[in-house]
Amino acid sequence: MPDAPMPQDAHPAEPLADLYPADRLHRARQATARAGLDALLISPGADLRYLTGYDALPLERLTCLVLPTDSDPFLLVPALEELAARASPAGDLGIEITGWDETDDPYALVAARLPAHTARVGVDNRMWAEKTIAFRTQLPDVRQELAGEVLNGLRMRKTPQEAAALRRAGAAIDRVHGRMGEWLRAGRTEREVGRDIADAIIAEGHVRVDFVIVGSGPNSASPHHELSDRTIRPGDPVVVDIGGTTPDGYCSDSTRVYTVGEPPADFRRLYDVLLSAQRAQTDAVRPGITAGQLDAVGRDFITDAGYGPHFIHRTGHGIGLETHEEPYIVTGNPLPLAPGMAFSVEPGIYLPGRYGARIEDIVICTEEGGERLNRTPRDLVVLP
Amino acid sequence: MPDAPMPQDAHPAEPLADLYPADRLHRARQATARAGLDALLISPGADLRYLTGYDALPLERLTCLVLPTDSDPFLLVPALEELAARASPAGDLGIEITGWDETDDPYALVAARLPAHTARVGVDNRMWAEKTIAFRTQLPDVRQELAGEVLNGLRMRKTPQEAAALRRAGAAIDRVHGRMGEWLRAGRTEREVGRDIADAIIAEGHVRVDFVIVGSGPNSASPHHELSDRTIRPGDPVVVDIGGTTPDGYCSDSTRVYTVGEPPADFRRLYDVLLSAQRAQTDAVRPGITAGQLDAVGRDFITDAGYGPHFIHRTGHGIGLETHEEPYIVTGNPLPLAPGMAFSVEPGIYLPGRYGARIEDIVICTEEGGERLNRTPRDLVVLP
Repeated sequence: MPDAPMPQDAHPAEPLADLYPADRLHRARQATARAGLDALLISPGADLRYLTGYDALPLERLTCLVLPTDSDPFLLVPALEELAARASPAGDLGIEITGWDETDDPYALVAARLPAHTARVGVDNRMWAEKTIAFRTQLPDVRQELAGEVLNGLRMRKTPQEAAALRRAGAAIDRVHGRMGEWLRAGRTEREVGRDIADAIIAEGHVRVDFVIVGSGPNSASPHHELSDRTIRPGDPVVVDIGGTTPDGYCSDSTRVYTVGEPPADFRRLYDVLLSAQRAQTDAVRPGITAGQLDAVGRDFITDAGYGPHFIHRTGHGIGLETHEEPYIVTGNPLPLAPGMAFSVEPGIYLPGRYGARIEDIVICTEEGGERLNRTPRDLVVLP
Repeated sequence: MPDAPMPQDAHPAEPLADLYPADRLHRARQATARAGLDALLISPGADLRYLTGYDALPLERLTCLVLPTDSDPFLLVPALEELAARASPAGDLGIEITGWDETDDPYALVAARLPAHTARVGVDNRMWAEKTIAFRTQLPDVRQELAGEVLNGLRMRKTPQEAAALRRAGAAIDRVHGRMGEWLRAGRTEREVGRDIADAIIAEGHVRVDFVIVGSGPNSASPHHELSDRTIRPGDPVVVDIGGTTPDGYCSDSTRVYTVGEPPADFRRLYDVLLSAQRAQTDAVRPGITAGQLDAVGRDFITDAGYGPHFIHRTGHGIGLETHEEPYIVTGNPLPLAPGMAFSVEPGIYLPGRYGARIEDIVICTEEGGERLNRTPRDLVVLP
């Protein structure tokens, strides 16, 4: 192919204007100025999509949104991408969109248009080193910091429209969990079940499958297990952790635990401890509690039940245009939760070589407390 | 999910030892020293896979292969990834693999282990800015350059095992083109056809669909068109440009042009010019011709036929563990082709608003000339 389009969207996008309000660029500029930066340099990825709605291709050629604090923003794209950029929601923002030709040096074009007094810029946290270093070569006296210092704070607080998009994503992945009995049974391999789940993730309203974890029997004790050719057996606990991206770019992520037939009695005890911990954590979400305190609510509960050493990962991660973003619900994080923050609550207990379990909901912090976006029952699901 | 696994592999990987020979790290170290660098810092992606066979997850947590020129290489991974790293081909290379814990600063761990005299390092071209800048903060007196200056030259020259992997990828995508008549017909939309193609890309031996372009009628005149809801009509030219990634990580990419029923006579003329140009280019591949000269072979031919202004992109791109990598077959590139280089030859002619065409084969340069890895007929395919 002449350039590198991403996998095609299987569904047309929904109306996006309310998801990408034009004042977002304005607010980002204000935050940039408050941070003492003279401009942001944003490359393809979640930051660019958040600021403009443009889901740009990650190409070797430079695509860059330039957001100076005291002059007009502009979007520089390879000439071949100009039509796509104009057709994206970025085309409705009233900002300049310029295509650069094969013989141009796009880094020099950006450098020439930054205000002469530019001393500090924030580069996109995900900008590739080849581009970061090309900008440094063009702008040797400009200090590079991270745009995330400005943007993470904005992206963390979801707008009502973003919350609605995450609700749709949660409902879509819930529909997949609701159909698990169609696929998950003794005699099938994890991989066979995983393929059916992947098909259903698309069929139920996502445009991309981001991950499919089916951990059966002893594999349930490995939080990073994905899929294997292990055949599921009667009595196996099965951890199913799945997620995808919806047409408007927002991600889903939910974990439920199934057993095929009746599990061992001591697995039930483990599961009951975990469920109580996860319930306590989702109930504890409210403005003002810190991310670290929320982690401790579950960790203390699990530790008191004697499983402390077996809860080997953080409680959760923020979610939005990326599956993993701020805030991280991790030991010691002093960040106070605030309305609009969306994150996973997913404690787990893992007994190596035997079995494990993890229960995961996406929760949005509201003024009234936590709103769970995943609504399938959290009880252990015993399939026939 | 507790971290961010990628979409699962749908097929088990093939034996990899011969694809990732242990001497590759040694040769990379030698090249690093020749480039005057003291170490390479390699992050997840094609470079890491090329050097170690480890297809690591792109996580917010640091995974880094450190390759000093005068001490032993080591691979630093988040503790949760240590088992996966050891289970990958990297586990068979005899290098140290160390997991870092949630409370460690992985950048400080790397900095502390670099030789004291370290003055210049090559960072992975695709390393995220947040990691590049974290290393700069830890190593303020160390000059950062690009690892690509060392690795691109190695990655460009495929080993016989890599050439065999690209041959398998070419055969897999050829099987998909060979089945086009099952799906492509008047009355169906591009998107419907594209979904069937995507399924077939997986069924015929890929683990990932990288892109599916189905450009029908006037959409064939847009090289960056992907899929739309346009219904294919009798007489439409249809450009089908598709590719995926095989289980061992190598990519396919091939374009053929179909028409549904007999196309307009002037489209046949355009196609014949294009086919002659593309044939001339694939026949011209040999060691010593420069990438720019190869581009000119097709461009001159198309220009002489009066279509010059309508060939609006470069001739091609290298291919391997990435769909787009060096060498780029582009006007003015002085790089002489050499045995082992693999790249696309894909001239196109686009008449905006009317129709267009592109013909693409992957070609490997051998001592004897170019070996085409795509073998389906290049003639215009007229489907019923």
